[in-house]
Amino acid sequence: MGKQMKTAITPTREEDYPEWYQQVVKASDLAENSPVRGCMVIKPWGYAVWEKIVANLDRMFKETGVKNAYFPLFIPLRFLQKEAKHVEGFATECAVVTHHRLEKGPDGNLVPAGELTEPLIVRPTSETIIGDSFSRWVSSYRDLPILLNQWANVVRWEMRPRVFLRTAEFLWQEGHTVHATSEEAYERTEMMLNVYADFVEEFLAMPVLRGAKSPAERFPGAVDTLCIEAMMQDRKALQAGTSHFLGQNFAIASEIKFQSAEGKEEYAWTTSWGASTRLMGGLIMVHSDDDGLVLPPRIAPAQVVLMPIIKKEETRQAVMDYTNSLADELRALDFHGEKLSVEIDDKDKPGRAWDWIKKGVPIRVEIGPRDMEKNAVFMGRRDTPGHKKESMDRNDFVAKTVDMLDDMTQKLFQKALDHRAEFTEKVDGKDAFYKYFTPKNAEKPEMHGGFALSHWCGGMECEEKIKQDLAVTIRLIPFDAEEEAGECICCGKPSKKRVVFAKSY
Amino acid sequence: MGKQMKTAITPTREEDYPEWYQQVVKASDLAENSPVRGCMVIKPWGYAVWEKIVANLDRMFKETGVKNAYFPLFIPLRFLQKEAKHVEGFATECAVVTHHRLEKGPDGNLVPAGELTEPLIVRPTSETIIGDSFSRWVSSYRDLPILLNQWANVVRWEMRPRVFLRTAEFLWQEGHTVHATSEEAYERTEMMLNVYADFVEEFLAMPVLRGAKSPAERFPGAVDTLCIEAMMQDRKALQAGTSHFLGQNFAIASEIKFQSAEGKEEYAWTTSWGASTRLMGGLIMVHSDDDGLVLPPRIAPAQVVLMPIIKKEETRQAVMDYTNSLADELRALDFHGEKLSVEIDDKDKPGRAWDWIKKGVPIRVEIGPRDMEKNAVFMGRRDTPGHKKESMDRNDFVAKTVDMLDDMTQKLFQKALDHRAEFTEKVDGKDAFYKYFTPKNAEKPEMHGGFALSHWCGGMECEEKIKQDLAVTIRLIPFDAEEEAGECICCGKPSKKRVVFAKSY
Ligand SMILES: [Zn+2]
Ligand SMILES: [Zn+2]
Repeated sequence: MGKQMKTAITPTREEDYPEWYQQVVKASDLAENSPVRGCMVIKPWGYAVWEKIVANLDRMFKETGVKNAYFPLFIPLRFLQKEAKHVEGFATECAVVTHHRLEKGPDGNLVPAGELTEPLIVRPTSETIIGDSFSRWVSSYRDLPILLNQWANVVRWEMRPRVFLRTAEFLWQEGHTVHATSEEAYERTEMMLNVYADFVEEFLAMPVLRGAKSPAERFPGAVDTLCIEAMMQDRKALQAGTSHFLGQNFAIASEIKFQSAEGKEEYAWTTSWGASTRLMGGLIMVHSDDDGLVLPPRIAPAQVVLMPIIKKEETRQAVMDYTNSLADELRALDFHGEKLSVEIDDKDKPGRAWDWIKKGVPIRVEIGPRDMEKNAVFMGRRDTPGHKKESMDRNDFVAKTVDMLDDMTQKLFQKALDHRAEFTEKVDGKDAFYKYFTPKNAEKPEMHGGFALSHWCGGMECEEKIKQDLAVTIRLIPFDAEEEAGECICCGKPSKKRVVFAKSY
Repeated sequence: MGKQMKTAITPTREEDYPEWYQQVVKASDLAENSPVRGCMVIKPWGYAVWEKIVANLDRMFKETGVKNAYFPLFIPLRFLQKEAKHVEGFATECAVVTHHRLEKGPDGNLVPAGELTEPLIVRPTSETIIGDSFSRWVSSYRDLPILLNQWANVVRWEMRPRVFLRTAEFLWQEGHTVHATSEEAYERTEMMLNVYADFVEEFLAMPVLRGAKSPAERFPGAVDTLCIEAMMQDRKALQAGTSHFLGQNFAIASEIKFQSAEGKEEYAWTTSWGASTRLMGGLIMVHSDDDGLVLPPRIAPAQVVLMPIIKKEETRQAVMDYTNSLADELRALDFHGEKLSVEIDDKDKPGRAWDWIKKGVPIRVEIGPRDMEKNAVFMGRRDTPGHKKESMDRNDFVAKTVDMLDDMTQKLFQKALDHRAEFTEKVDGKDAFYKYFTPKNAEKPEMHGGFALSHWCGGMECEEKIKQDLAVTIRLIPFDAEEEAGECICCGKPSKKRVVFAKSY
């Protein structure tokens, strides 16, 4: 595409990345803001992507022995007080239910009535309410492990909401497990992190780093928080999944005790792990371009869209027959254990092809009388520069579709990996570090920085200072970080390994 | 089973039906009450049944062109005021969010803070918040129809909660559609009622009556409410799904307008339809017996459970190999388009078989060294009286499993149908009607009554009087009710057809 050509999305990524993001969400018809502050409406196209994410993650969880269950939306206030750090972490941003009725007030308008004796909190996460059930379900080592997951909505009040990335209500899954030993619980924590990493890399084509959070960035009440982090196109990090080793903290708070094989009463060891509709935000920001959404084929609601071109009424039937039979052939194809999903768009209105480009469908096919004559299709891939289309023999196209889709997944992944490699560097010395994370234009910051692999002394003060000065945080301490002597980027004290610093969502 | 034999569930249905219900829920491990008043915990076995219900209903909805989406949990107070009847119907039983923060009070305990300028209601149903989106999405007849569904949790405060049947929070789906014409909207209302009826009859093996509600029993704000009603074993009715024709009421309240093909601005026509975790309650009450849950095969999380019997360590490997290879064979079987689901329970503890009887698994198989020698299995069906088991040739068993399951579904359905026929009768005259619905033992009412097909003048006063006197309501006006002259059961005025009166859940 030449520099002069108009893009489907205005502004472009380069011009204004945050605004570009909002415009891609809009143009792709994924979601919109609702009249309820901070809450989003997930539109059918967006929800269909989420359904793909849910179906595949759910299958992967179940393959590790996890079962689904459902726990109450509301948490009694006293439950939140049980774990001190947990309270501090969540108490500042909760939706509080105080009444259970509405009555007509003196002016005829409805007013809250029926005050509750104890306020209820809309769950921000469910460790405490699930812990209450676990305390009743666990009595012997024979009851362990318990491996549960719940798909649910949660609410965390947000002062600066942003669709998918930070919303007051969001959809997620939260896994909760109980174990007899610390080792087994830690193994589960790592296992589920790897499930997230595998899912995100294979299905979302999004390369991730795996590691542990620094103490300041841990889940409130956790002993250790493992995470995966991905780099967005603006070089900021997005946390794509977390897995928490909770030690015995929540078991003590919720009284989850069991009699061991040796007859001793012990507190259990628990984990929790979650991924949410934030993944949708990451997906958009990693792959999309200045013409809209780009969907990795395995989570696209439709891998192929067929657009019959009906110029004259007398050819309508023939074109539609050709289209429908092609759709049948494609829908019979196996695509990673499922049938290929094909959409037919016969609305034949101006801008139809561009709508599908903006919605990110991997392969578009146009079918007109001339294509039929040649037993051909006129097809374009979402990842072809300039959206160039080519004529392909129909049978050849059907035979190659799955390979093309896999090739696209592979290329999207590689492109994101190259991007991350390009903007990841070892940064040493305070000056270089501050320079790395400071935009040239303070008024309207251009894309800058990236992932800085830098030394850190392990001190909270340094971490806090860097956060205050630059809005940069330690994203993770990589599992595979090499031992290397160095000096803390902030205070110069000795450090043994590099951690990943970045700005983040 | 002889009369003297102990049942797995105490009390029996005959002795105390409501308490029997609670005990079946407990013994089958489907769900439990939570510490949050009126909210339940759906345990893994119960949730797995719900997942089957969801998967199949979802597929059936999508086959009619419906797509899923997701709308906010919270509804601004002013939205509820828009439709007068709707407010009256729901305002008395809502969870009201008034604050968005918790702070430490003077005594160190958390107290609600950050009062909202406008209270938010936790959705009891979503017509108003979805209507707001529709008003923005619809502008031309070309935008219609809109056919959406949402799977979600909703909250209606309950003073006398009962697990699955009446809970403050429950899971459901709510479909919402918008149409250009009254006819099309009414057709959709009927179509979705038929989807519910087909699903409930085929998958839950629960026969239903189809019809319309009387005006007093309609959904608040609806022009017409269609419903399906099933008879429980205690002869009470349970509403298993409703489909509402909303006319233009909600379109006017939410300003859903469109430009017609003729260029005229018109209000749209809307429908909504829902089914919930109440279906789980119906399922339990229709089929279960005094030994626990009975699951219709198509919604059982596992159709078959295999229980290897390991008496000596030296036979363990051989028995497990036999069990695993049998499981593989069974899991390769096609059961209504899915693979058969098989559970292996190798815990070999006393009472294991009874646990699976109480959990309602359709077919139990025991495998010991002697069965192996004969290349046989020792199997029992959940619907065999006395839970008698029989030895079957292994290959014969595999060949017959699917047929046995379908036979069980058919028998469960027929049994429920016979039960309904037995306790459905034409009742004429006020005395007979009052007698029909009055238990002999007022203190501890025995099972009594049933579905009374009786004449009704159409007057609200008669309906109200019968409800007050007998706690009996008009369950539905059957679609297939014959024209027949008669006299109202209450006031004696002329009536043209019989309606179905019953006590209900
Ligand atoms: Zn330092
Ligand atoms: Zn009357």
